[in-house]
Amino acid sequence: MKHGDFTAWESARLARFHKALDAALPPGNTYPARLHEAMRYACEGGKRLRALLVYAVGEALGGAPEVLDAPAVALELIHAFSLVHDDLPAMDDDDLRRGRATVHKAYDEGTAVLVGDALQTTAFEGLANAPHLPLATVVEMVRLLATASGSRGMTGGQQADLEAEGMTLALADLERLHAHKTGALILACIRLAAAAAQADHATRITLDAYGTALGLAYQIQDDVLDATASSATLGKTAGKDLAAAKSTFVQLLGLDLAKSRAQTLLDEALQQLAGFGEAAQILRELTLKITHRRH
Amino acid sequence: MKHGDFTAWESARLARFHKALDAALPPGNTYPARLHEAMRYACEGGKRLRALLVYAVGEALGGAPEVLDAPAVALELIHAFSLVHDDLPAMDDDDLRRGRATVHKAYDEGTAVLVGDALQTTAFEGLANAPHLPLATVVEMVRLLATASGSRGMTGGQQADLEAEGMTLALADLERLHAHKTGALILACIRLAAAAAQADHATRITLDAYGTALGLAYQIQDDVLDATASSATLGKTAGKDLAAAKSTFVQLLGLDLAKSRAQTLLDEALQQLAGFGEAAQILRELTLKITHRRH
Repeated sequence: MKHGDFTAWESARLARFHKALDAALPPGNTYPARLHEAMRYACEGGKRLRALLVYAVGEALGGAPEVLDAPAVALELIHAFSLVHDDLPAMDDDDLRRGRATVHKAYDEGTAVLVGDALQTTAFEGLANAPHLPLATVVEMVRLLATASGSRGMTGGQQADLEAEGMTLALADLERLHAHKTGALILACIRLAAAAAQADHATRITLDAYGTALGLAYQIQDDVLDATASSATLGKTAGKDLAAAKSTFVQLLGLDLAKSRAQTLLDEALQQLAGFGEAAQILRELTLKITHRRH
Repeated sequence: MKHGDFTAWESARLARFHKALDAALPPGNTYPARLHEAMRYACEGGKRLRALLVYAVGEALGGAPEVLDAPAVALELIHAFSLVHDDLPAMDDDDLRRGRATVHKAYDEGTAVLVGDALQTTAFEGLANAPHLPLATVVEMVRLLATASGSRGMTGGQQADLEAEGMTLALADLERLHAHKTGALILACIRLAAAAAQADHATRITLDAYGTALGLAYQIQDDVLDATASSATLGKTAGKDLAAAKSTFVQLLGLDLAKSRAQTLLDEALQQLAGFGEAAQILRELTLKITHRRH
């Protein structure tokens, strides 16, 4: 496959994702207008890696893009909600996100709390309204998304992150934290896509292994970038974890070992896709993109 | 029906509700323990009016308590989540709730944000895991709960409330605010119960009229109590709306007119139940209890 094929695929999927996202969000001029505007503001920008992952996994399994719109939107809504709350003064206290003012800076803190709340609700609402899917699949997607987002998943990871401030974690504890905070939602992209594409049990097991390795590779690479890039490049405050005395993989492993661990995990992830042949070529390209590798 | 029948019914339903709630919440000693403990703390106490309303409506329609546990728990989880976030310093900034320290006082502000987030997730998770119900009903309940909780329902009402601080609202605007902030969730109790009991369309229309009148009666009565009772009696800070320069029905209508408007709405609500005969007797008793009337 030529690289141009991936770029064309990505543009096409981003276009359909943004159309589906727009339809899922209440119009900005409806009551209460300030909340609806702020919800849209919170959803603008970003690389949409989670949505792209839903499409790429689902399509590798023969799923049609039409059945993947709802899970793609739901995953990005949960991601956006978590960023809005994570940026709050009581949490990471960040002013910059996706190259712009965070929601509590652009609006106010109370509105930011409610924006996060409402974006989470919209994610579940969108799944319940998903067209073209069997009811059993819809219910399964709600269940999978809830488990991944809640206290035993992403939100639990944010709590662990909050508690770890000022502490040096052991490597296993840092991995557990990130398996919750970022890993659970990445795995959910894969699981919801597999559910929407009606994948069989064996395929789901393989993809879970792919997703677990990918999630950790992504986080380690994120720490590497945070330690080496500028805020302007990242679109969020760089070096923040170091400033907040948070444990990072770079801090625990050193830069070189962190890089090589990310590479090993990426190789493991790609290994899991070996059996999918040409159907997973887009997914392989996306995997490299997500882990910030250029082949 | 003797009043003792209602008291016995209430005790029995509260017992089964608390068992179902306990099963829906992660154990307090599991990772991340502080979050799971705080989630349980946030769910303790309260009159459980929403859960009781789910049981009473569902049973009036011939539904078995077993199909009503999941919606009863989901509604109380959404209610608890909204209280935790509403009490935050960036919102109502309240220290006292259900006679105890609010979650951000008993724990910390970041944990309180995450507790609310995770309780919302748990509500949808519980519906997706509801036993004894057709898949179509589960999906419908998720949809109804999301619409009632989100930006076009409860969360939207909280935003309107936030924006109305320091302003004197017109009566119609105050009614719209409360139709969102408290009314939507009360209506959701009724709608989820009707869905679980497989009620027909005509019955649902009648119950919607009942729920709309009940929701507003409840809020007006709440304002009346806030203006006349002490914090010790309420278990939350009394006279708070007045202090925060928030519009209330008492302020707009005066105490006597507010009381008589609540009574008229209560009569309207009970009128809607006329056709249900003896089957709705418990629901009638509960309606009086919810609106703080002793017959």
